[in-house]
Formats: sequence, C-alpha cells, structure tokens
Amino acid sequence: MTQIITTISEMRAQVHAWRNAGECVGLVPTMGYLHEGHKSLIERSVADNDRTVVSVFVNPTQFGPNEDLESYPRDLDRDVALVTHAGADVVFHPEPEEMYFPDRSTTVHVEGLGNELCGKSRPIHFDGVCLVVSKLLNITTPDRAYFGQKDAQQLLIVRRMVRDLSIGTDIVGCPIVREPDGLAKSSRNTYLSPAERAAAVVLSRSLACGRAVVESGERSAEAVRAAIRAELATEPLAEPEYVEVVDTNTVSPVDVIAGEVLVAIAVRIGTTRLIDNFFFDPAA
Amino acid sequence: MTQIITTISEMRAQVHAWRNAGECVGLVPTMGYLHEGHKSLIERSVADNDRTVVSVFVNPTQFGPNEDLESYPRDLDRDVALVTHAGADVVFHPEPEEMYFPDRSTTVHVEGLGNELCGKSRPIHFDGVCLVVSKLLNITTPDRAYFGQKDAQQLLIVRRMVRDLSIGTDIVGCPIVREPDGLAKSSRNTYLSPAERAAAVVLSRSLACGRAVVESGERSAEAVRAAIRAELATEPLAEPEYVEVVDTNTVSPVDVIAGEVLVAIAVRIGTTRLIDNFFFDPAA
Repeated sequence: MTQIITTISEMRAQVHAWRNAGECVGLVPTMGYLHEGHKSLIERSVADNDRTVVSVFVNPTQFGPNEDLESYPRDLDRDVALVTHAGADVVFHPEPEEMYFPDRSTTVHVEGLGNELCGKSRPIHFDGVCLVVSKLLNITTPDRAYFGQKDAQQLLIVRRMVRDLSIGTDIVGCPIVREPDGLAKSSRNTYLSPAERAAAVVLSRSLACGRAVVESGERSAEAVRAAIRAELATEPLAEPEYVEVVDTNTVSPVDVIAGEVLVAIAVRIGTTRLIDNFFFDPAA
Repeated sequence: MTQIITTISEMRAQVHAWRNAGECVGLVPTMGYLHEGHKSLIERSVADNDRTVVSVFVNPTQFGPNEDLESYPRDLDRDVALVTHAGADVVFHPEPEEMYFPDRSTTVHVEGLGNELCGKSRPIHFDGVCLVVSKLLNITTPDRAYFGQKDAQQLLIVRRMVRDLSIGTDIVGCPIVREPDGLAKSSRNTYLSPAERAAAVVLSRSLACGRAVVESGERSAEAVRAAIRAELATEPLAEPEYVEVVDTNTVSPVDVIAGEVLVAIAVRIGTTRLIDNFFFDPAA
C-alpha cells in the first residue's frame, strides 16, 4: 500500500532518506480523481525512477472565483488504490492550509506564454499553476516531473519556468490518453451527461480534421483553424471558446506554420469546459 | 585554492557529488568585491556546513537603468583569495549569459514587502534579487544560505520568498560588520572620497541616536525617526533618502513600536547611496 504523507516536513524527510540511499525520485503532480491519463504518467515515472511521489492536491490558487474549485471531483481512497496499483511509493496529499500561509505574498509569473489560449478566460490560472508547481518541486526536489500533454499550455509554461529559475528537474511531457472514441481523458469528463458525453467526441474529431489538413502540406494557420471550426459546428452542443495555432516557444498565434506549433482548442459542452490539442512540427 | 566554477551544469554536478557523499552545503550569495562582511558570512557557513559555495555574480536584473551596474567594483582574483582564506570550497562565478536566456520570461515577486524603504527608489531591485536568489538556490540546493543583515529588506523578502515557495533552505541572517568608526562594510564604500568617507560615519551615528531613544522606552516611531534625522542633519554631505521604522513582517511603516521593527535609513553621501539599519523587538 502506498504511503500517504500530508505534511511538507514529512515529505521532505522522506525524499531526504531516499536521496541518502542514492535513489532518484520522480514526481507526478495531480489534482486527484485520477484516470488512465494520470496512470500513464505514474507508470512512466515508476519505470524511470527508483521512487515516485504522486501529489494529490486540488490547488485553490489556480481556480478563478467563478470556476469549479468547490465542485471539482475528489476521491482520495480511489486515488490511493490507483496509485498503489501503478506502483508509486507516496501520495502527497496536503491540506490547503499546509501549502499556503494566510499572508502569502510571493507570485511566480511567466510573462507572455499565459496570455493566449486558456489564459484569456482564466487570467489567474497559470500563476496559480506556477506557484503550486514551484512548491511541489521544491518540496520533493525530483529528478523528473511528469506532465500530461493534454494541458499543453501548462506544460510549456512549466518548462519555461523551470528553465528560467534553473530548477534542477527534468520536465517530461507525456502523450494524451484517450477514451476508445477519442475523447481525451479528463477528471472533468465526469461532469458530462450521457448526451454531452456523446457530443464531446467532437473535440478530438475536429482536431483530427485539422491534423489532416496540416499533414497534407497546408501551412496556413487559418486553413487549419477553419477545418477544425467547421467540424465543431456540426455538433449543436459544442460551443467553441478558442481554436488556435500557436508557436510552442512564445504561445503566440502564427499565421504561417513554419516551426513547431501547438494546435489547441477549448470547447464548452453544456456547462463543462473541455480542452484538447496536438503538436505539429513541419521539420519533423 | 578554492575551485572556480562558471557553468550551471558543473555547479549542479559538484553539489550532486557532495550530496552523494552525505555532505551538507552552505551558500553565500554575493556580488563580489568581498569585504569583511562577506567574510563573516563565509566563515559562518564554513563552520556550519561540510561544503561552502560562494557565488560571485554582479546580477544585472537587480540594477535599474540609472544605477551602477557598469561601475560596480569587480576583482575576482582578490575575491578568490579571500574565499580561499575563509575556507570555502567553490566560487560560483557565471557570466550573465550563463544565468539568463535572452527570452527569459519568469518573474518572482514578493508583494508588499518591497514597496517601502529601498523599493521606493529601486522599483525593480527586489524582483531582480528574488530571481537571482531563486536560481542560485535551485542550482546549489543548499541546506543553509547566508545573508547579511545590512541588506535587511532583502533578507526579509528572501525569507518570505523561501517560506512561500517551500524552498528547503534555511535562510541565516548575519550581523552587520562595521569599520572601527562604525561605518557598515559595503562594496560601495570604495566610491567615497576621503571627505565623504569621513562624513559617512553619520549613518551609524544617527542610528545609535535612534537606538538610544527606543531603548530608553520611547515607542513612538516618529520620535525615533526625529532623533535620527536630527543627527543626520549635522552632516552637510549627507542627503537622507529615507528614515523609516517598519514592521518586520509587512515592511510597512508603524506609528507605534509594538512588535519587532526594522529601523532603516538610506543616505546619499555625494553620489554614493549608503544604507544601514538595526532591528528592535520591545518584547526581547
């Protein structure tokens, strides 16, 4: 059975003991309610490292005032069972009061990379992510930390932060895990009614259309976006929030696909906001 | 002879080797041109830790556009000799290009604590300090890092940052080291002409007046400030920039001295800006 640690000091002591034994450490940061996507990250970490920590922390600082912090799904027992099965050593599960002082005053901000895509509708989100990821990396000082590519903008921002702050952790991005029909695994999929669940497949289907266009040699970002939008328009329950093609270094929209790009969408299905994406490099 | 390391990767590898040997590490971050004040920090670190790293890096991001980045005194050979004599193991001396990417985009900001005192005339200074200290702590992952109390606001901000980001380093504040006449040691003292050097003693003399007032039982911050200002006024070459009494948690001015305070001054002597301070706790 995986050990559950709830305090920063115990977590540090455990990592210290592993380090003293010459063991390397992987971290999989999560907000819990784990699914196959998280499981793939944990299994990758278990394969790469002597020890794996899975943090389960619904981080309040990355939720806006009108977002789903309170309703975000939680099930620690189920999470611990999944983590145990996947072979990780520790679930780090601090309370918000353990992580944040009432008079906390430090912010970590990555300028520019959070302006587009999800940053437009979630203005404080990535600062909250940077803060909690900084803390988790400082507490567990892992050799490697594993992030899903589904949260692609998060992955790019965390990579930039780790580079700029000289954090000694290798950030490993892992492929999106999907349901059999193509829907990207997400804890928020549980919000969907059966009809919405059926409709949600339009995200991956529309991205497949966009990918077909770019893989056919088309280099106009607008042509790719148009193909995705056209497919999204076939689903009455889908309300697109954005359909964008951005440079992976700057996370700024491009007109022409000349270097590696991230093609990313956010779509509301009923009241549930879902995201999906793919990376494309014309030189690859 | 102390080893000189100029790259982040070599510095990490050296710390890694020490850690694998079970050794603990102290860091003394400096901008070089070392004096007795730095030496006291290094000696303290050498006494407390198996290994000591002294970083010598004139950090461009903490200098404003009209400040003395270019003219800041530098003498690496002399610094290495002093560090060797003090018993440290490594001088970490990266070039600015090694520390900062041209497209760096991450900022670390401590809200509120940098608004008063030196933050008023040096608006970007403490963000630059937080950035470079974050990086140095991430590169050397020390058990302890040593900061002089002369830069008191810096010490309070770094402590807050380290607390808020859960950085696993103990921040050790060390007493101000002074010339025989009372002038606080500073690399910037070299800017002073002989007449200015004689005048500069008014900083510590005025603080002694303030300290006498508060130690006599006076709890009005204005009375303490007035005593300091009166003494500063006796020196024609001294132009006070600020004379403040601030809460050590918030770095905000207080009217009544009820908890621990920092009594801090900044004074221009000719074109040279000097700072000095003392801490006072009525409960101590």
